[in-house]
Amino acid sequence: MAILSGIHPVAEALRSRHPMDRLLVAQGAGGPRLQEIIDLARRAGVPVRFEPRSALDRMAGSSAHQGVVALGAARQYADIDAAAAAELVVILDGVEDPHNLGAVIRTAHAAGAGAVVIPERRAASLTDVVAKAAAGALEHLPVVRVTTVNRTLEALKKRGFWIYGLDEHGESAYDEVEFNSPTVLVLGGEGKGLHEQVRKHCDILVCIPMAGKISSLNVSVAAGVVLFEWKRRHSKRS
Amino acid sequence: MAILSGIHPVAEALRSRHPMDRLLVAQGAGGPRLQEIIDLARRAGVPVRFEPRSALDRMAGSSAHQGVVALGAARQYADIDAAAAAELVVILDGVEDPHNLGAVIRTAHAAGAGAVVIPERRAASLTDVVAKAAAGALEHLPVVRVTTVNRTLEALKKRGFWIYGLDEHGESAYDEVEFNSPTVLVLGGEGKGLHEQVRKHCDILVCIPMAGKISSLNVSVAAGVVLFEWKRRHSKRS
Repeated sequence: MAILSGIHPVAEALRSRHPMDRLLVAQGAGGPRLQEIIDLARRAGVPVRFEPRSALDRMAGSSAHQGVVALGAARQYADIDAAAAAELVVILDGVEDPHNLGAVIRTAHAAGAGAVVIPERRAASLTDVVAKAAAGALEHLPVVRVTTVNRTLEALKKRGFWIYGLDEHGESAYDEVEFNSPTVLVLGGEGKGLHEQVRKHCDILVCIPMAGKISSLNVSVAAGVVLFEWKRRHSKRS
Repeated sequence: MAILSGIHPVAEALRSRHPMDRLLVAQGAGGPRLQEIIDLARRAGVPVRFEPRSALDRMAGSSAHQGVVALGAARQYADIDAAAAAELVVILDGVEDPHNLGAVIRTAHAAGAGAVVIPERRAASLTDVVAKAAAGALEHLPVVRVTTVNRTLEALKKRGFWIYGLDEHGESAYDEVEFNSPTVLVLGGEGKGLHEQVRKHCDILVCIPMAGKISSLNVSVAAGVVLFEWKRRHSKRS
């Protein structure tokens, strides 16, 4: 992941719409040119974080960053419209491991999903590790980054999506529900499952019935099991 | 993974059947006590490798290893009889990434497999990383380590198993074949697929039909898709 620092290089990168993961601004720094950068970042949907100057020193590898450091993304994020047009959307509610994020993106693309949605905070973002684990799928599948998963679920519901949440206590087995179209599948983060508010936004909570003595699967494996069941039924229908 | 060195500690560990990943013996080293250790290791099914003394120095962190270093395993391997009694066995033909091996073990256990089989060479073995990725499943699911996958397939075939190989060019879709019982599912290593000889030992080669522009899934995701299809049909039958 490329790291840029200094007023001029960062402003240029933003103007040329370089994929950017986030912008760090030194606490207490100011001035019109820095403000312009902050405005550019916000318009481009790049998260802006105010952090101690020492954190920026560490990131930039020197103190000559003029109060601003930009962390490049491996890939450009897509607009939410990319998701709204899809028949199947995968939303990750806080997946933190980049290998898991990459494997889910790869799996979602192979199952026919039209977009993957990830939250801005407390979640892996599109780094090179993710791109590698996605094995090329990032070139084809739009990834949308949103401020809150809840608001995105509300917006997609208004557009006619049915929201299916995967939850180990879900009331229906994934292979026994009807998948109404268009479908959103929401998956929780590693070992934590869905957030309470996200769970409440789901139309149906589904589970994967399991043999044996453990209660959950790796999130990318769980995604594969449910998404390929969706695909199996979907291709029978069409 | 614990590392033991020296004639006495290694002999003791072997006699007390301590889980062991492999035994390294310095090239040119000899003597009756060392020979006794080699015999013990072979009887216990622990692979013995003859390596330059400098390699042993590096592993042991000193040159006081008396020509023998043992690499402990996170878990004990099981006997092939554990597999022969199962209704579903997963065989990995050279999975090298320990996270993938752990995730496959976790998935196999959750789908109701009775054993996982891995080869001795050019494959991940049961390290702590694998145990962690298996999320507890290693406590419940026997893992068998074999010298060659081909011979194991022949042995299981004689005991009535049907061998299904997952292959991107497989002639049947995984969700359209009959799964005859007892079932072996063979999966290839990352990015390489099945070895030619292994492929020839399969009764049926199955594929996972995919949308999109990439041709394969992560091996643990692929295992999940096929194993849970097996489980889905199996629970309907019983």
